[in-house]
Amino acid sequence: MSENTEYRPKARLPRGMRDRFAADVMARRRMLDTLCAVYESYGFDPLETSALEYADALGKFLPDQDRPMGGVFGVQDEDEWLALRYDLTAPLARLVAQNFDTLPKPFRRYQVGPVWRNEKPGPGRYREFYQVDADTVGASSMAADAELCAMLCDGLEALGIRRGDYRIRVNNRKILNGVLETIGIAGADAVEQRGRVLRAIDKLDRLGPDAVRALLGGGRMDESGDFTEGAGLSGGQADVVLAFTAAGQDDRGAVLGTLRNLVGASAEGLEGIAELEAIGELVDSGGYAADRIAFDPGVVRGLDYYTGPVFEGELTFEIRDEAGRPVRFGAVAGGGRYDGLVERFLGRKVPATGASIGVDRLAAALDALRSDAQVHAGPVVVLVLDRARLPDYQRMVAELRAAGVRAELYLGDSGMRAQLKYADKRNAPVAVIVGEDEFVQGTVTIKDLMLGAALSGAIQDREEWRRGQPAQQSVPRAALCEAVRAVLNPQPA
Amino acid sequence: MSENTEYRPKARLPRGMRDRFAADVMARRRMLDTLCAVYESYGFDPLETSALEYADALGKFLPDQDRPMGGVFGVQDEDEWLALRYDLTAPLARLVAQNFDTLPKPFRRYQVGPVWRNEKPGPGRYREFYQVDADTVGASSMAADAELCAMLCDGLEALGIRRGDYRIRVNNRKILNGVLETIGIAGADAVEQRGRVLRAIDKLDRLGPDAVRALLGGGRMDESGDFTEGAGLSGGQADVVLAFTAAGQDDRGAVLGTLRNLVGASAEGLEGIAELEAIGELVDSGGYAADRIAFDPGVVRGLDYYTGPVFEGELTFEIRDEAGRPVRFGAVAGGGRYDGLVERFLGRKVPATGASIGVDRLAAALDALRSDAQVHAGPVVVLVLDRARLPDYQRMVAELRAAGVRAELYLGDSGMRAQLKYADKRNAPVAVIVGEDEFVQGTVTIKDLMLGAALSGAIQDREEWRRGQPAQQSVPRAALCEAVRAVLNPQPA
Repeated sequence: MSENTEYRPKARLPRGMRDRFAADVMARRRMLDTLCAVYESYGFDPLETSALEYADALGKFLPDQDRPMGGVFGVQDEDEWLALRYDLTAPLARLVAQNFDTLPKPFRRYQVGPVWRNEKPGPGRYREFYQVDADTVGASSMAADAELCAMLCDGLEALGIRRGDYRIRVNNRKILNGVLETIGIAGADAVEQRGRVLRAIDKLDRLGPDAVRALLGGGRMDESGDFTEGAGLSGGQADVVLAFTAAGQDDRGAVLGTLRNLVGASAEGLEGIAELEAIGELVDSGGYAADRIAFDPGVVRGLDYYTGPVFEGELTFEIRDEAGRPVRFGAVAGGGRYDGLVERFLGRKVPATGASIGVDRLAAALDALRSDAQVHAGPVVVLVLDRARLPDYQRMVAELRAAGVRAELYLGDSGMRAQLKYADKRNAPVAVIVGEDEFVQGTVTIKDLMLGAALSGAIQDREEWRRGQPAQQSVPRAALCEAVRAVLNPQPA
Repeated sequence: MSENTEYRPKARLPRGMRDRFAADVMARRRMLDTLCAVYESYGFDPLETSALEYADALGKFLPDQDRPMGGVFGVQDEDEWLALRYDLTAPLARLVAQNFDTLPKPFRRYQVGPVWRNEKPGPGRYREFYQVDADTVGASSMAADAELCAMLCDGLEALGIRRGDYRIRVNNRKILNGVLETIGIAGADAVEQRGRVLRAIDKLDRLGPDAVRALLGGGRMDESGDFTEGAGLSGGQADVVLAFTAAGQDDRGAVLGTLRNLVGASAEGLEGIAELEAIGELVDSGGYAADRIAFDPGVVRGLDYYTGPVFEGELTFEIRDEAGRPVRFGAVAGGGRYDGLVERFLGRKVPATGASIGVDRLAAALDALRSDAQVHAGPVVVLVLDRARLPDYQRMVAELRAAGVRAELYLGDSGMRAQLKYADKRNAPVAVIVGEDEFVQGTVTIKDLMLGAALSGAIQDREEWRRGQPAQQSVPRAALCEAVRAVLNPQPA
């Protein structure tokens, strides 16, 4: 073989990338169909933007990125740099700015698609992942934010996640800014310090309060030895911030009371509290109590561009971690108000707010909830035992399909045993077997592979098995479709 | 405004990219739902691979590409080069090689998704576009190729394209090689020349026989002044090739007869004819006559990697070109057998065949076929005339949704006129109007915007219009949903 001397590329995926097989693709499709129907019922229209954008149009909003183009996959296109989108929000801002005069305003849209992050991959941490985002652009009313929170509830519940198994936690960046004002971290010169504070708080759920205290103060070394510089707060300042983050409770009114004490006279802080209160009233009148939409100042979100309300959708039920310990599933959605993103292009404020769901995380959650997960059923497989009869086998498959049965012809070169193994690998519920005898007699043999698998565990004696063939029946050729359908959809006795 | 002095990026898309709004996204979704249901009924399972692959895994199979990485978008990842996939076939070959031992064989899968080509964009020519591919890997039987051709027919017909409005044209590369052997262009040293010949033939539909004759001979200068080097055939050699490409007819048996004369004693040519004949028998017994699946040696496909049967799905109905002249819609699908692609990785032959549909082209065709194209209906819009009553409006929207009506709350700051304009822009069928009077009286006003638009053309007198308000009715608050549904789904009188 001359090929053996040629260069042979290795068949592998870039790190942090993955292939998805049928069961995953189908589960995601079912989930998104349900979710998008809820979004559309709220008046959100689907939209798609391209995967590549000009790098300068995307901007640099990823947290913890100091390098130029850090965190994104850049592509040189003649003299300019393109980049794969790292979220669906920055492209939306570009699109709104580009089509500002023609879009209906407010503009509600949702978008489903992959985003790419050029980051260090890890277990469960991919460089390509799906998001579904819903955003309202051009509405400054808190009704837009309240609507997104309610829609997240409706979406999660439509997917079968019960009340009590999830919670939307809402906060407002302006309140955090108000709290920071009271401890003297205000003004334009403290922008970077405020950024460090919010990224520290954003790690509360993952790292706990001690690590966050270190990040608020002098900095923290993680287990791998990487050092993250701290925000440089004093112990007293950090106390105030940590008291703020711990102010969440089950009663929304009580949270507002605590926050009023913390922001003091800060105008921005009071504005944030008024906004939170407005959201509370709206979701209340919609029937969403604090068991579904709670106020929690521990939620700040890591992205720099949020300017007002921020929220996170958390699944509160427990799963087992790798070590078998019970852990909360955690956040599957997040979002907030970003009144400055369109302004980057147009030079004038355009209010906007949005919610993003991590599609793969949510799909994993649904999988964990359903221990009785639907096994992806394969097609009926028609074996080919006499290749000269291919047209006959082909007609059987076509008849089954016309009868609404998913069916395929075996297309390989192997014998009957291997063909039955193939049918098993395909999760086929039924194999149709027609050999010389059957052709002569005008019959077909229908093998119930599900029953066969169940019985093969119970029957010990090979001879008994061979004689009985309990999962197998012979029917006239003309009764093929009827008999297969009877196996697939048995009538209750 | 301090922002005015800052750098402001331009809101624009990279050339050759586009945004897709609701009507496009929804039309494509409907189309793919139909198509994928057909594919699944044939036993093809959905699969998704990542957008980025190692550049060497994708290989260089794009036609007319001399530059390294030519035609693809490359991304440097530390020391290695990644590239955005330029089709869905090369990633499939990588996946099969990577998972060879665990996949069922034959392996049938379909994949839907965008691909990217770093080429010169033009009218209707994008650098990001969708494909849907179905492939069978591990089957050397012509039944696999015949099945794909039949499935293309079933798919197009399921989409409402009638028999006679499309045709699958089938050929075999081995026959072309046989013909070239008879005119002395055989062997390893003529690989490049054979490539030029097939790329010349591939342009037949677009450029016509005179241009192809030039490309088969000394070369051709196009209108823009770009010169394409020719294959260097003599006039006599070119005659044979052109006779070959013109051998297609309505009778499949007659085509086979003509081809037998052209390939003479070439073993490869005769093998190709036998394969074509086998496909003919199989599709014949499936009931697919030559009006659906024809033999046409004018089809060769431009990609280098095809090794046997090649086919193209063409829409034969006419549309108007930019100058208003009737033209055939043309090819929307193509494919063929590529027995060498997996071998690149594994060093051993793995037979494979597949069909790819150009999703955007096919969507455009369906759009052209349906002059009565479904107008994308917007949601019912509930106006907000008294902002203090937001919770009341919100309840109306929630009730409508619970009644199965797509409904949205107006979230902007404008007055009633602008809100009605917004509803028009959203294609809203109905606006719900509740002002002070209605709240006092316990009623809601329901405005039929479709009827309103129809009537506003007919009524001349503004006063008459104002008095009559024929498209508007007042109903008790409790009858909101019932009344809206009656407008949306009028009962026949």
